Amino acid sequence: MKRAIVLLSGGLDSATAAAIARSDGYEIFALTIDYNQRHRIELESAKRVAVALNAEQHVIMPLNLRIFGGSSLTGDLEVVKNVPTDTIGNSIPTSYVPARNIIFLSIALAYAETIQAEKIYIGVSSIDYSGYPDCRPEFLTAFESMANLATKSGIENKKISIAAPLVQLDKTATIKLGLSLGVDYSITHTCYDPVSDGVACGCCESCLLRLQAFANVGIKDPIKYAINN
Amino acid sequence: MKRAIVLLSGGLDSATAAAIARSDGYEIFALTIDYNQRHRIELESAKRVAVALNAEQHVIMPLNLRIFGGSSLTGDLEVVKNVPTDTIGNSIPTSYVPARNIIFLSIALAYAETIQAEKIYIGVSSIDYSGYPDCRPEFLTAFESMANLATKSGIENKKISIAAPLVQLDKTATIKLGLSLGVDYSITHTCYDPVSDGVACGCCESCLLRLQAFANVGIKDPIKYAINN
Repeated sequence: MKRAIVLLSGGLDSATAAAIARSDGYEIFALTIDYNQRHRIELESAKRVAVALNAEQHVIMPLNLRIFGGSSLTGDLEVVKNVPTDTIGNSIPTSYVPARNIIFLSIALAYAETIQAEKIYIGVSSIDYSGYPDCRPEFLTAFESMANLATKSGIENKKISIAAPLVQLDKTATIKLGLSLGVDYSITHTCYDPVSDGVACGCCESCLLRLQAFANVGIKDPIKYAINN
Repeated sequence: MKRAIVLLSGGLDSATAAAIARSDGYEIFALTIDYNQRHRIELESAKRVAVALNAEQHVIMPLNLRIFGGSSLTGDLEVVKNVPTDTIGNSIPTSYVPARNIIFLSIALAYAETIQAEKIYIGVSSIDYSGYPDCRPEFLTAFESMANLATKSGIENKKISIAAPLVQLDKTATIKLGLSLGVDYSITHTCYDPVSDGVACGCCESCLLRLQAFANVGIKDPIKYAINN
């Protein structure tokens, strides 16, 4: 069976990307980076998603990006709350983590090369959160070319490709697609600033986009919120 | 003062690259990745080199690549010993670590972006060890372009460049250059398979190239070897 690495954060997008990988016929090797993010509860969601997907392996790799900081997710910057959803993504938000997707794809590449996987799935979207430079198609294309110049597998013409099946979808379309593939969104986690028992805050940028998307789809988001649901 | 990240392994090449960065007028922020390599003793050398260079900061970032393995430095492959030096680099050696330099540069990029460094120094050479795909100039150029597509600093036109001042030098030329800059090679570590007290084996590929280069320069390598010196 063909093998794929799936970068699994525990969020809605990566759970959907993983379901797509499975539907594409891949044996799934899930990779979650524990980067000491503020919303560490998402690691528990990642474990549940990996089990639900029947992943062959699930590696949780610690890499403490809090040593550098520079983001509201790993340092002292504030998580933005209660903004109009149509303004989200107009600029690079405080939740941008320097070089995060480059680092995540690099570690996924090491994993892929070692187990001879042919593809890496990443659940980025350039539509929602278009403020993140490392969610854009031109970055993903450049990463893939660079990666195949720098690896043994690339040199030996066993190229590893980057699949970003959600890159042109907004969150509403992503949820519709995921539901059609049987994704259980009740086990996913999206909030950047969850309240202490793992209940989502309901007002950070990430919650607001998710809630708006479920409203657009016309169904109730199955996770628990402190407010706004 | 301008800031640069220097990827510092504790080896001969990165110590030389760091001395070049200092000579280029940069304040040095040293970064060492503790990837759970077989030759962990090099971390102690990295600390000594950072002190000798008067680095502003020295971050040692743990990232356990042994979880993946796939190399003689992180897994079960054998360290190659006692081969003719002119055959080293004819193929990709077992000491190749999947995606290692991509991962190292990615983490350096996160560091650079956070502290607003403008350059990342890496001590790779495409001459010695030309078997490593991730030591080639075309990879470094592709990485730099990719990085500036994916980062906030790239988008804001505060580009971060990759400096590989040794990429066209062999180890003999590197040592000559380092000596002219005052590098103390007695505090560096090169061996892939050191004997228990930190003495270099003297017969792995890495030792053989180092010993050959010091012989070419016409001086005695100041570190201790079990054999061959």
